[in-house]
Amino acid sequence: MSSESGRVAVTSVMRWNGWGDPARASDLPRAVRMLLPLLLGRVQKPAPAVELAEVSLEPSSLRDDDRQALADVVGAERVDTSSEARIRHAGGRSTPDLLRRRERQQASPDAVVLPGSHDEVAALLRVCADRRIAVIPFGGGTSVVGALEPERGTHRAVVSLDLRRLSGLLRLDEVSGEATLAAGTTGPDAEALLAARGFELGHYPQSFRYATIGGFAAARSSGQSSAGYGRFDSMVTGLRVATPTGDIDLGRSPGSAAGPDLIRVFLGSEGIFGVITEVRVRVHRVPHDRLFEAWSFADFTQGVEGLRRVTQRGGGPTVLRLSDEAETAVSLAQLGRIGKALAKGASVITVYEGDDIAARRARTSAIFEAVGGVSSGERAAEDWLDGRFDGPYLRDSLLDAGVFCETLETATTWSNLLHLRAEVTAALRAGFEEVGARSYVMCHVSHVYPTGASLYFTVIANIRSDPLDTWAAVKGRANDAILAAGGTISHHHAVGRDHAAWLEQEIGETGVRILAAIKRELDPTCILNPGAVIPSDRSR
Amino acid sequence: MSSESGRVAVTSVMRWNGWGDPARASDLPRAVRMLLPLLLGRVQKPAPAVELAEVSLEPSSLRDDDRQALADVVGAERVDTSSEARIRHAGGRSTPDLLRRRERQQASPDAVVLPGSHDEVAALLRVCADRRIAVIPFGGGTSVVGALEPERGTHRAVVSLDLRRLSGLLRLDEVSGEATLAAGTTGPDAEALLAARGFELGHYPQSFRYATIGGFAAARSSGQSSAGYGRFDSMVTGLRVATPTGDIDLGRSPGSAAGPDLIRVFLGSEGIFGVITEVRVRVHRVPHDRLFEAWSFADFTQGVEGLRRVTQRGGGPTVLRLSDEAETAVSLAQLGRIGKALAKGASVITVYEGDDIAARRARTSAIFEAVGGVSSGERAAEDWLDGRFDGPYLRDSLLDAGVFCETLETATTWSNLLHLRAEVTAALRAGFEEVGARSYVMCHVSHVYPTGASLYFTVIANIRSDPLDTWAAVKGRANDAILAAGGTISHHHAVGRDHAAWLEQEIGETGVRILAAIKRELDPTCILNPGAVIPSDRSR
Repeated sequence: MSSESGRVAVTSVMRWNGWGDPARASDLPRAVRMLLPLLLGRVQKPAPAVELAEVSLEPSSLRDDDRQALADVVGAERVDTSSEARIRHAGGRSTPDLLRRRERQQASPDAVVLPGSHDEVAALLRVCADRRIAVIPFGGGTSVVGALEPERGTHRAVVSLDLRRLSGLLRLDEVSGEATLAAGTTGPDAEALLAARGFELGHYPQSFRYATIGGFAAARSSGQSSAGYGRFDSMVTGLRVATPTGDIDLGRSPGSAAGPDLIRVFLGSEGIFGVITEVRVRVHRVPHDRLFEAWSFADFTQGVEGLRRVTQRGGGPTVLRLSDEAETAVSLAQLGRIGKALAKGASVITVYEGDDIAARRARTSAIFEAVGGVSSGERAAEDWLDGRFDGPYLRDSLLDAGVFCETLETATTWSNLLHLRAEVTAALRAGFEEVGARSYVMCHVSHVYPTGASLYFTVIANIRSDPLDTWAAVKGRANDAILAAGGTISHHHAVGRDHAAWLEQEIGETGVRILAAIKRELDPTCILNPGAVIPSDRSR
Repeated sequence: MSSESGRVAVTSVMRWNGWGDPARASDLPRAVRMLLPLLLGRVQKPAPAVELAEVSLEPSSLRDDDRQALADVVGAERVDTSSEARIRHAGGRSTPDLLRRRERQQASPDAVVLPGSHDEVAALLRVCADRRIAVIPFGGGTSVVGALEPERGTHRAVVSLDLRRLSGLLRLDEVSGEATLAAGTTGPDAEALLAARGFELGHYPQSFRYATIGGFAAARSSGQSSAGYGRFDSMVTGLRVATPTGDIDLGRSPGSAAGPDLIRVFLGSEGIFGVITEVRVRVHRVPHDRLFEAWSFADFTQGVEGLRRVTQRGGGPTVLRLSDEAETAVSLAQLGRIGKALAKGASVITVYEGDDIAARRARTSAIFEAVGGVSSGERAAEDWLDGRFDGPYLRDSLLDAGVFCETLETATTWSNLLHLRAEVTAALRAGFEEVGARSYVMCHVSHVYPTGASLYFTVIANIRSDPLDTWAAVKGRANDAILAAGGTISHHHAVGRDHAAWLEQEIGETGVRILAAIKRELDPTCILNPGAVIPSDRSR
């Protein structure tokens, strides 16, 4: 099934200890450098990051016979125990991940294994189950919730199962608008392959340039065009999954009442039940027309009212996002308009794609104006679109400058949105204050539903104590606040290991028992991603 | 939680051995009586149906101490072992169910128990698990797939758990557009309670007048306005469920990546994992405007092309259904236009509700005309709306006249739709031919998705052999054809017992193992709806 012939390579190799293409990394914009002391006081530069060659790993605990058994499936050259491969698969791209990449001694998987087909994945899982080797499925490596930590559970070794060779457009049903993609296909590769046939998937999370189709499914991703095309969950019409105890092919029809929808058991399963190898998705014709418009609201509350009315009305924008006052100010600063930086107000970005865009914009404009919004023209929306995947580069620059920067996100109903935002903001601020760190908390809404919306927080802080410990405590307070105030522990970043301890508060003891029961059935030796989603003590 | 104060009683008690309100039952329309001999030859009248008082049941196998233990939870008057109550809960409303209601000796549950709250449901499940009494959750009694058969599995008794007292609108969040309804609330009660506050759910399956909100969830129902408001699955934002081993409350936010969506484990679970006691649903403001338009296409193929283009374009009708040539002919006959009855062509009904209806109709009309459709005005669409819940009454009249009548349904992608229809039609015809029964097979599309659509078959036949045996064989052939031709075993009727033997072909052995693992965890003594969804030999 590896259709490498049809593959279009447009994805570069990601920086090992930061985000994205090393060539695109940059210094802090001047405006940000000027703003930081105002927001956070004087920041101390950290020790320089280590070079890849300076990193020290434990020796691989794979035995020769393990290596041979894995090589028997994929070939010896695809069982990589080099330090570089192991370091590159040592984690994801949360800020704690990146901080850990700055240390000399690092944890890593014992090998990286590169299967080339569904059948090779299935065979590797059987080998690893037999030999009690833990397996961490690895797509684009962009997890920000600790889903890729090389945790071996009770096993003697752990391998990273890199799915990059499962890449390509396997089938396209142009009549039905359905595409089957190999799970390791990256966002840009998928869109390039589809675009060559006149189609688009339309899923653009911030991780788009590196993350994979299988990762989007496993983590229940949501993209920037979700107002128009829905979250990734809603795009998936079929899945093929290899588990240690058998394969499963799901999704015979666009709607069904043939028992519970088992696709949903694997969406969000983050590699703990099996490895997704193929994903069938709904696709649409590449839209030809596009309109941009930015709006300014008096404050976040007014902006939320505008978003709610537009969303409940329907037939609005493809992209719809609202930045609160704090984020609006800094976004303007980034664009070099430092003079206006601390102006009041909350900004909204709208992008319209596809059919009826003029009517959809007119409808949206009427609602926004009725609520008190003022159009600020196309420019800011176009600028946002140009830079929309570049946020993580800015984080790298901030970390290099000694500024802690991280994000977290949740969602709730419209009626609870302002309360949830206030509680999480307060928890973040209080957490940093407790260790005497000045912080600046920003928030935006970027995913909307008829009944509610997401909240995405970006926080920067001037931490003088240990940043990993400090953030663990602050993040814990934020998680507690989210659950106490009725939010979900994650809207689209997933559970990973970072949120696993909070999941039971969300889905209850009975919910955790359901997940553990499925896990025992499909992965009885518990080799798959130990400790992710279900805390280790609950998964046996 | 039983908010009977807020209850609006608009649902009548259903006829015990047929559909609906006895006062609405009617003789066959004259046009149908004239048409039947042409389609099926001369039909023999069956023996008259038995009266309720003539039905003989096995004595209740509940012991006195069982009865007392149940009465301790709900009160003695709510443990009903009368013959009438037991007969009224002896099954659903499939044609085989109705044929069995014509026999003197009938199987039935040993008692009907009527809990009044979530906590009473939970307590009853514990009592029944302790005493090894099987439990059949019972909503409106409208299952057409054998989900309500009084199967006791390996247990010594079986009770019907009638949820009618769990009725009412428990909460309405007007800002978010979310309503929480008690699971036993019927469709009309739910809409009346919501309408009093200016809201609508918009879920109108043919069973609407009797079926319950919990049943819609448990069976993954889909209603006639699904083109506009989606299938019931997509309306559900939260669930409360009692299981024999613990409660679960699901749905903290409109979108989430907090592990797999466990709501989807219970949607379609048909009472085998637990009893749904509350359902939170997305609601919308009652639409004020409505437009009707019927269309005529040269044939079913052309009509399908029209539906596909309209659906993939988006922003079309609220109701969209296409009858094939055979169904179009008979529908016209029912309306008394016998002269035109055998005219060629396939008819489409469209209804537009809510916002932008003129623009949506214009858009749809342009597509239909481009494909070759011709508008036939408002009348036929209005007539359809008036009679849309009355199909089951016609079936009763046909059965009384000796004409077998039953429905079945499936779904697939647009590219496979004509193939699937041809294969199922051929299987039905061949099945009846084999026993020398003349038959007439009709089909419509009533649920559309960007990637595909449903197929709903209505078959009438002149069966001279045993109708139950004959239909079991014919239906088996149709099920085989559905799965061989890529369809789902059910689009919205669910699995029940009638489809359980085919489920493994659809979801695979691994899929059945997942369901069985969840069942073992939540219902270890296997008291809940034994034999439904998962064949009995697979659920332990």
